[in-house]
Amino acid sequence: MSLKKKPVTGMKDILPQEMEIRDYVIGLIKDTYKQFGFTSMEAPCVEHIENLTSKQGGDNEKLIFRILKRGEKLKIEEAKEENDLVDSGLRYDLTVPLCRFYSNNANELPQPFKALHIGNVFRADRPQRGRFRQFMQCDIDILGDPTFLAEIDVILATSTLVGKLDFDSFTIRINDRRILKAMAAYSGFPEDSFTQVFIILDKMDKIGMDGVAKELEESGFAKESVEKYMDLFKAMGNGIDGVAYCKEKLEGFLDAKVADDLTTIIESVMQAKTANFNLEFDPTLVRGMSYYTGPIFEISIDGFAGSVGGGGRYDEMIGKFTGTPTPATGFSIGFERIVMLLMERGFKVPGAKEKKVYLLDKKLSNEKLLEVMKKAAEERKAGQSINIAYAKKNKKFQKEQLEKEGYAVITEVYNDTVL
Amino acid sequence: MSLKKKPVTGMKDILPQEMEIRDYVIGLIKDTYKQFGFTSMEAPCVEHIENLTSKQGGDNEKLIFRILKRGEKLKIEEAKEENDLVDSGLRYDLTVPLCRFYSNNANELPQPFKALHIGNVFRADRPQRGRFRQFMQCDIDILGDPTFLAEIDVILATSTLVGKLDFDSFTIRINDRRILKAMAAYSGFPEDSFTQVFIILDKMDKIGMDGVAKELEESGFAKESVEKYMDLFKAMGNGIDGVAYCKEKLEGFLDAKVADDLTTIIESVMQAKTANFNLEFDPTLVRGMSYYTGPIFEISIDGFAGSVGGGGRYDEMIGKFTGTPTPATGFSIGFERIVMLLMERGFKVPGAKEKKVYLLDKKLSNEKLLEVMKKAAEERKAGQSINIAYAKKNKKFQKEQLEKEGYAVITEVYNDTVL
Repeated sequence: MSLKKKPVTGMKDILPQEMEIRDYVIGLIKDTYKQFGFTSMEAPCVEHIENLTSKQGGDNEKLIFRILKRGEKLKIEEAKEENDLVDSGLRYDLTVPLCRFYSNNANELPQPFKALHIGNVFRADRPQRGRFRQFMQCDIDILGDPTFLAEIDVILATSTLVGKLDFDSFTIRINDRRILKAMAAYSGFPEDSFTQVFIILDKMDKIGMDGVAKELEESGFAKESVEKYMDLFKAMGNGIDGVAYCKEKLEGFLDAKVADDLTTIIESVMQAKTANFNLEFDPTLVRGMSYYTGPIFEISIDGFAGSVGGGGRYDEMIGKFTGTPTPATGFSIGFERIVMLLMERGFKVPGAKEKKVYLLDKKLSNEKLLEVMKKAAEERKAGQSINIAYAKKNKKFQKEQLEKEGYAVITEVYNDTVL
Repeated sequence: MSLKKKPVTGMKDILPQEMEIRDYVIGLIKDTYKQFGFTSMEAPCVEHIENLTSKQGGDNEKLIFRILKRGEKLKIEEAKEENDLVDSGLRYDLTVPLCRFYSNNANELPQPFKALHIGNVFRADRPQRGRFRQFMQCDIDILGDPTFLAEIDVILATSTLVGKLDFDSFTIRINDRRILKAMAAYSGFPEDSFTQVFIILDKMDKIGMDGVAKELEESGFAKESVEKYMDLFKAMGNGIDGVAYCKEKLEGFLDAKVADDLTTIIESVMQAKTANFNLEFDPTLVRGMSYYTGPIFEISIDGFAGSVGGGGRYDEMIGKFTGTPTPATGFSIGFERIVMLLMERGFKVPGAKEKKVYLLDKKLSNEKLLEVMKKAAEERKAGQSINIAYAKKNKKFQKEQLEKEGYAVITEVYNDTVL
């Protein structure tokens, strides 16, 4: 009756050292977003298989952990395909559950609903370094607010959160899906090939402007369009100036309100921000998900490759799902990536009070034991962390271990020790 | 493409009001146990099906959500029974994962390992009021400590936690498996029927002493044994006296050290406790799980039926599972029950700072908006929770809703409002 000792393939045990950091980051997330008027919510990890396979999840739908039907509903002999055997599955993201949650509970929720949603998601992905089949996601979303107030809110709140972490400075890049489209339209790309254009544009980081131009041409787009497109990027700056340039240059292709709102968002965030970061207009920012409809944004820590969060407005998705049109904007925090970065740099949770341990002699009398217990109770009441343990034979090794665990004060107690 | 709106059968959406209480209780749990030297750990929700069906889970093994194999490993045509189709399942408790976790990571863990384990578990139980198929469990365990220090620790820490909740007073009952056995042996019950005797004794709460005596006799036990047994219960008190009585009366059946240790546990806890509760020796306390080997305990809130937590020493279980004998004692907190009790009494999370909302006029200028944003940033920095929203047409209703959500201060902002 011996156990399989390793976790199931692709999942991991989380040891105390990492848990301390995770608990700390989760605490920061909850505190920070609550200060901005967000409220916590939770949906089950298990979701209807129909909801998970409704084509909204893209490639993630290929990675579902499916759950077997139970009791009489399970008919193994008659089953021909997977769907005959299962009725539910583990969620692969928090978006599908959020949509279901919102349509199930809208009447009981604040309007707009500012949701903070933290939970494990599951993907039967090919195991690889740093990616696990169970991982924590952290999404914030504002449902029911069509105004730029929602964007200002999610960006300010998220920047406040990241500002409290142990990073010197970071950058949030912002763009708008409608600017992306207007630029492509202005340049003369046919509308039905916008998606293809954006997929190539999205490689700017890696292959540079010349690389993008080359790939666009190789894909068969008109040289003239490609040149016009590149000229736009070359002409505009990354700040408010870039937005103003778009507003003027793309007249006829871009609703002026889109540029005005984006300007307001950038100005408001830059003036009301409390953290050390820059909010940059980046006309090359694409973000993969096709459901975005308005402003999109991405956050990166200066000095580290890749993003630690991103999001945008997706006004059409919830309506498609639930039948009731609902404007929405949200930010997904790269929780696991943030924890990994903190672990790699040997981050110590700040503000933790000094940890103390009483190391008891094996022959301690009951009277002395009581004295230690009472003393520890007082110290805990005053906010200290107190551990109590018997001294082991190899006391030197034991002390070294305790120091590694963060015990700054180790007090040995014998029957004649004065506490 | 419309969604199924309800959660899957037997699971529930958790709304903001309940989440606030859950977050609060989880925060208390983490803070309190950390003060006693416990460290957080986490195992995946998904576990090897072999581990889940190793007979350690009792009836819960009938309630497993099984997960379908994926890719080439899934051979539907060849499958004859459930086990051909699945390779894993959702955990039904935290004990099996803890045992696996410990055997996988013992070398990297503190010795003794004081574990705080909070997580969702899943049981495909018949749906009924107040019981859900996904619910949160909260276990604390000390692995690797054979001394009574471990019992004192888990009881003191747990009583400190419950004392911080909104209940006037509570009771912890304690017994020892070895006293239970010694009493049955002394009374002349055959050893192979102890389990049956304890199952009947466990009904004391409901059917009283006469009921227990009657059922024992009806089950065919010797009248003399039943009378001797009942006389023991009648003769002993519920305090330390009862333990002393056992030590004397059960000589030859009970190791004196068992009674001495229990006395030390009770005395230490009663003198070092910080909460308003009584630790009572209760010789009728059985606790169902057959794996307990030493002291067992159960906690109940005065004025509410049922327990909100319980546990005991289980020195043999981990060894059976992992091959390495490991003394262990633990407490399982009835997290969902505690949250339900707090909800029922309309509990308000204490210490929450005043929540404030700025209600913006639709025609607010960008300058004024910036002013509000800056003001809010300052107030948040000072620890306040600030929400910002546009005023709706039906402002009266909106304000009522905001008050319900706990916004004590509602400030309307027009272009000429002085902030």
